[in-house]
Amino acid sequence: MGIPDEKIFPHATGRAQNLVHAREGAADLVFHGSWFCPFVQRAWIVLEEKKLNYQWKEINPYKKDKEYLAINPKGLVPALTQKGVNVTESQVIMEYLEDISGPDVRMHPADPLQRAVARVWMDHIAKKIVPCFFRVLQAQESDKQKAAEKDLLAGITEFVEAMDPEGPYFFGNWFSMVDAFLIPWLIRQPAALKQFKGFEIPKAGSPVWDRWGLWMESCASRDSVKNTSSDQQHYLQILERYANDTAQSEAAKATRKGEVFT
Amino acid sequence: MGIPDEKIFPHATGRAQNLVHAREGAADLVFHGSWFCPFVQRAWIVLEEKKLNYQWKEINPYKKDKEYLAINPKGLVPALTQKGVNVTESQVIMEYLEDISGPDVRMHPADPLQRAVARVWMDHIAKKIVPCFFRVLQAQESDKQKAAEKDLLAGITEFVEAMDPEGPYFFGNWFSMVDAFLIPWLIRQPAALKQFKGFEIPKAGSPVWDRWGLWMESCASRDSVKNTSSDQQHYLQILERYANDTAQSEAAKATRKGEVFT
Repeated sequence: MGIPDEKIFPHATGRAQNLVHAREGAADLVFHGSWFCPFVQRAWIVLEEKKLNYQWKEINPYKKDKEYLAINPKGLVPALTQKGVNVTESQVIMEYLEDISGPDVRMHPADPLQRAVARVWMDHIAKKIVPCFFRVLQAQESDKQKAAEKDLLAGITEFVEAMDPEGPYFFGNWFSMVDAFLIPWLIRQPAALKQFKGFEIPKAGSPVWDRWGLWMESCASRDSVKNTSSDQQHYLQILERYANDTAQSEAAKATRKGEVFT
Repeated sequence: MGIPDEKIFPHATGRAQNLVHAREGAADLVFHGSWFCPFVQRAWIVLEEKKLNYQWKEINPYKKDKEYLAINPKGLVPALTQKGVNVTESQVIMEYLEDISGPDVRMHPADPLQRAVARVWMDHIAKKIVPCFFRVLQAQESDKQKAAEKDLLAGITEFVEAMDPEGPYFFGNWFSMVDAFLIPWLIRQPAALKQFKGFEIPKAGSPVWDRWGLWMESCASRDSVKNTSSDQQHYLQILERYANDTAQSEAAKATRKGEVFT
């Protein structure tokens, strides 16, 4: 018998299911993903924003199929295969998609210095925001949950203060890698944090939280985000295992040990 | 009274001291570094390989000077300032230096797919090799040290098996970002691991370790690496604090908590 997470709901639902069906045909670019995974959705959003032609392959990363381990020995999703070369790690895949597509669908600033700024904030998201989502959800003691909530709000506040003040996106009126890098967590976590942990991130009420609410709404309403999202009830089913701290993903295991998973 | 690490030896020695003196003059590009820090040396090697004009500013990251916290609120080195914009995180700085320099001093493959491969292995170095160096050095119990040694050798083996078989460098006959990303640890750690922990990484004796030895020797003998290196005795002084687990760097503190510091 496998680990509990091996029995996750097997496929995308809602809008993401339509997209997966449309992406069944063979293509030069093969994207290995899991419908529920926020790390996957980051890169999936970029594939959609850039209107690249790709084939979707659904992977259950808990099953550790030999065939998939040959593509990514770490067993993690996402992975992208082209010309027999396997590219892993969500950010590496996103940078690759930027490198192979033209300036008309750019998702990084054209100016190298501003591109560096984008990567500094992606690093901040990876180290100071995303791990806090896992920490809040997996906390089993009240003081640990409170500490994680505080760190999450501090990480988000710092991020918001670095945003273009008008917005709606991080760099102003265009959707960039920075936005795609974080939004998948905001599609999944707020409902789970509210239902399982009684915690809500403010969406308005002060300059920081007004700007945050605007950013979140604007990102969430993009077609690339909506089309790669499954039904909330299915995300909640997955996240409930994090909330009672029985999830077996690498991110869940790292969080349990007090590590940061990036 | 400050934390013990605040009293580290205050400046570079040996060849690095000469370089620092040559880089005292004002320049458009200001590089904030600490002579002892391997994360700094990564980016410093790239500055030297590309023969860029820059000003060196020595930072003691343990002192948390207000002036430096304005440049990097996280207080970490390296940081790079240009046109009033601060760029932090060693890899982000390295990518920026690549973006602003011409194809004659390229340190990433020109082919986007191979560039992605480079970044996959930089990620491997960050997550599967570098943290193991800290874990072995800081281990205070024999079983923990053994486990860390095993993980270190496994991480290195996987890396070596991905190298161009002829070498001497990761991609063959040219020195790349991948090489610069790891070599600073091999300049510092072997002497400390041997002296304080009785542990040596093989440098020959099998196809994997022969290839590793060739890679290490070839990288270590480059001018960019030698010129950014201080005297061994001064590195040892710093690393002794890791070996008795009293070091106060962010990497040391993360390792102590069982976290991975990237």
